[in-house]
Amino acid sequence: MQHIKNYIQANKDRMLEELFDLLRFPSVSADPKYKDDVLKTADYVAQKLRDCGADNVEVCPTAGYPIVYGEKIIDPALPTVLVYGHYDVQPADPLELWHTPPFEPTVRDGKIYARGACDDKGQFYMHVKAFELMVNTNTLPCNIKFMIEGEEEVGSNNLGIYVKANKERLKADVVLISDTSMISMENPSLETGLRGLSYLEVEVVGPNRDLHSGVYGGAVANPATILAKMIASMHDDNNHITIPGFYDDVIELTDAEKTSLNSAPYSEDEFKKDLGIDEVWGETGYSTFERTGTRPTLEVNGIWGGYIGEGAKTVLPSKANAKISMRLVPNQTSEKVTQLFTDHFKKIAPSYVKVTVTPHHGGEPVVTPTDSIAYKAAQKAIAESFGKEPIPTRGGGSIPIVALFEAELGIKTVLMGFGLDSDALHSPNEKYDIYNYYKGIETIPLFHKYFAELSK
Amino acid sequence: MQHIKNYIQANKDRMLEELFDLLRFPSVSADPKYKDDVLKTADYVAQKLRDCGADNVEVCPTAGYPIVYGEKIIDPALPTVLVYGHYDVQPADPLELWHTPPFEPTVRDGKIYARGACDDKGQFYMHVKAFELMVNTNTLPCNIKFMIEGEEEVGSNNLGIYVKANKERLKADVVLISDTSMISMENPSLETGLRGLSYLEVEVVGPNRDLHSGVYGGAVANPATILAKMIASMHDDNNHITIPGFYDDVIELTDAEKTSLNSAPYSEDEFKKDLGIDEVWGETGYSTFERTGTRPTLEVNGIWGGYIGEGAKTVLPSKANAKISMRLVPNQTSEKVTQLFTDHFKKIAPSYVKVTVTPHHGGEPVVTPTDSIAYKAAQKAIAESFGKEPIPTRGGGSIPIVALFEAELGIKTVLMGFGLDSDALHSPNEKYDIYNYYKGIETIPLFHKYFAELSK
Repeated sequence: MQHIKNYIQANKDRMLEELFDLLRFPSVSADPKYKDDVLKTADYVAQKLRDCGADNVEVCPTAGYPIVYGEKIIDPALPTVLVYGHYDVQPADPLELWHTPPFEPTVRDGKIYARGACDDKGQFYMHVKAFELMVNTNTLPCNIKFMIEGEEEVGSNNLGIYVKANKERLKADVVLISDTSMISMENPSLETGLRGLSYLEVEVVGPNRDLHSGVYGGAVANPATILAKMIASMHDDNNHITIPGFYDDVIELTDAEKTSLNSAPYSEDEFKKDLGIDEVWGETGYSTFERTGTRPTLEVNGIWGGYIGEGAKTVLPSKANAKISMRLVPNQTSEKVTQLFTDHFKKIAPSYVKVTVTPHHGGEPVVTPTDSIAYKAAQKAIAESFGKEPIPTRGGGSIPIVALFEAELGIKTVLMGFGLDSDALHSPNEKYDIYNYYKGIETIPLFHKYFAELSK
Repeated sequence: MQHIKNYIQANKDRMLEELFDLLRFPSVSADPKYKDDVLKTADYVAQKLRDCGADNVEVCPTAGYPIVYGEKIIDPALPTVLVYGHYDVQPADPLELWHTPPFEPTVRDGKIYARGACDDKGQFYMHVKAFELMVNTNTLPCNIKFMIEGEEEVGSNNLGIYVKANKERLKADVVLISDTSMISMENPSLETGLRGLSYLEVEVVGPNRDLHSGVYGGAVANPATILAKMIASMHDDNNHITIPGFYDDVIELTDAEKTSLNSAPYSEDEFKKDLGIDEVWGETGYSTFERTGTRPTLEVNGIWGGYIGEGAKTVLPSKANAKISMRLVPNQTSEKVTQLFTDHFKKIAPSYVKVTVTPHHGGEPVVTPTDSIAYKAAQKAIAESFGKEPIPTRGGGSIPIVALFEAELGIKTVLMGFGLDSDALHSPNEKYDIYNYYKGIETIPLFHKYFAELSK
């Protein structure tokens, strides 16, 4: 362990500066105007892998943004760790809410503020620096492969194609991903489950043009009101989703699992205070952790219709739209839930309007077994690095490709992330604590060490 | 009558060209970036009044946009007609839906397409040309005063102040306004009532920042969903508004009034076809005309929250907003209804969120008595000009200042408009039929003639 700390101490400024350089690329995959920046980011990542000693580094083209591959095979007989991450980031808007520019990493109170600081650049780059550390101290115990893609934020549409076409190259014993969070640095934790995702856009169209709300108001159905009614009907008074069949495949937790889940530290007062709310909300009969980790949800991610500019305009809008997504839990499947939603939404649409439903990317829910070698290796690494056993948690977010890896490569994933819930992923002023960055670089080599030992 | 037709024939091209010049000014009062254009429009109107022979023409400054005044007093003993109109226009967006530029008047199939073609430039300018006609043919039978303001589309906030400060100057026997529509040129009609208006913006705030919908979804109330539920609750299954006390002051029509109202030509098939809808909608137990003319309404004019750009973003929004307006009928008052809405909306807001309600401009409903001299003069003018008695109708739109004129100047208003419902007011591709423009110029001098005769 000491050689790890020594190496980090001797190289910490450069390790941070390289991350800042990575963060300066506005690699926003959702917006085509950033295309060149996304491509340059891929090149930067490839170069850094080469600099750290990786072999066969390649910026692999896809129908979309490239996937950066690199490896170091020290002995085919040794276990192989496949590291996944993504170099693309969420859009930064609303820009006016950032205290410093989203693509100019700024340090305040020991935190790096930038879009992508945590999700996912700060987190995946720890693995690149841990790799450099292991190579330069000659302590690399496993083979290692890197697969860093550029489309996670827009659905990883081309990753599946790449994985299926490169099964030989990607053969490994475990996938290691840092794209999740811990409870805190005092209470380290390991994500044992992720929710799935179904994402759709809906459009409700009434009259064939915007109308004068005086001339026509009262005689023509208002699509914004109709959409509101349809959305309102999605949750009953217990905040239970009303789509028929929605909960059919959901597996309830056992009492033991619930006890374990709810044993993690949680202060409802702090939760409310952090978010500035007076009351939490959710499905009757479930705790906060159960609601975010083990229950499916339906959220309006965006809604718009009519006149939304400055001042007043008395228009009866022609149409109204919404972006709606659902988080899924085992054993729901994205395809089935998407179909259930689509059928139901069209069915409840009154005849005054025409409704279209357009699905976006989805992803399957996953659970990582705590009795696997990979989980135990992570557990030991964290116990040594933090001086405390990690608490097993169930994550609310989705990393759709985890199910893909299991299906196509036959390997499980360990979700060993070093983020914090306060990192404001997908929000303005996203950040990553410098302490967490170095802690990850310190812990990752220990995972490799224990994974090799436990695999013997 | 013949001298009227002769004069129009001899001057019709110039009369149209002057209107095109007026339409070219993008006098959008709601958007400060058009400030200079609005001011230039006022100057143009003033110059045209002078050119036509008006005296004491003045561009009267206000705290906002100026009011253009002009008059011709031929004999204080004669009745005085006060013509009201507005030279400002609605915003043109969404621009991409216009077939030709909104501020470049274009003629297609005998219709002038431009923002303001009907509302209100085409309509008020008929009075300027009718005035020119009467002066130049020496047939002006009444005194005439013009009051053309520049803030009608944003609530006429400074008009009341001007009217109160100029009661002597504005003394008259009737206010004449062309800002409404007829059923058709084959079925001329006169508006006998206008609905009032209450306009508000609401904001529903949940968490103090946008959240990751995976990390927090299910445990935190989504303001977009809450807003949808609140809006959805505003109409019951009979599309009756649920705000307590809302209908208390509403006067129901007598059976005779309903019969008269519903006797106007109406084809539901054509109505639906024109709007591209499969079914009309509205309060159970009322016909289309009753719904738009005699019943109050509540409309969502705009709604927005969360991520509304391209692609997918899995955000649980911090807040959601809507612009909501209500049309009022006698004897509802704007102030009371605004208060009822505000109290109710705040009351139904659950404790998960904080709600603010911000009122905009309002206006009172009005009914013009059909047994007045002014109404009869309009009736005779139309009967002569169209060869058919006008049908009395109840309009759905609001012209808030009509109630103001009655309260401050003690005079009734005649709403003699020559627009058509197909003119697409407040929508893209607004138009005004050239036939209607000239028909108005032809009819208006007849109003003056009969108003003078009936006043003896």
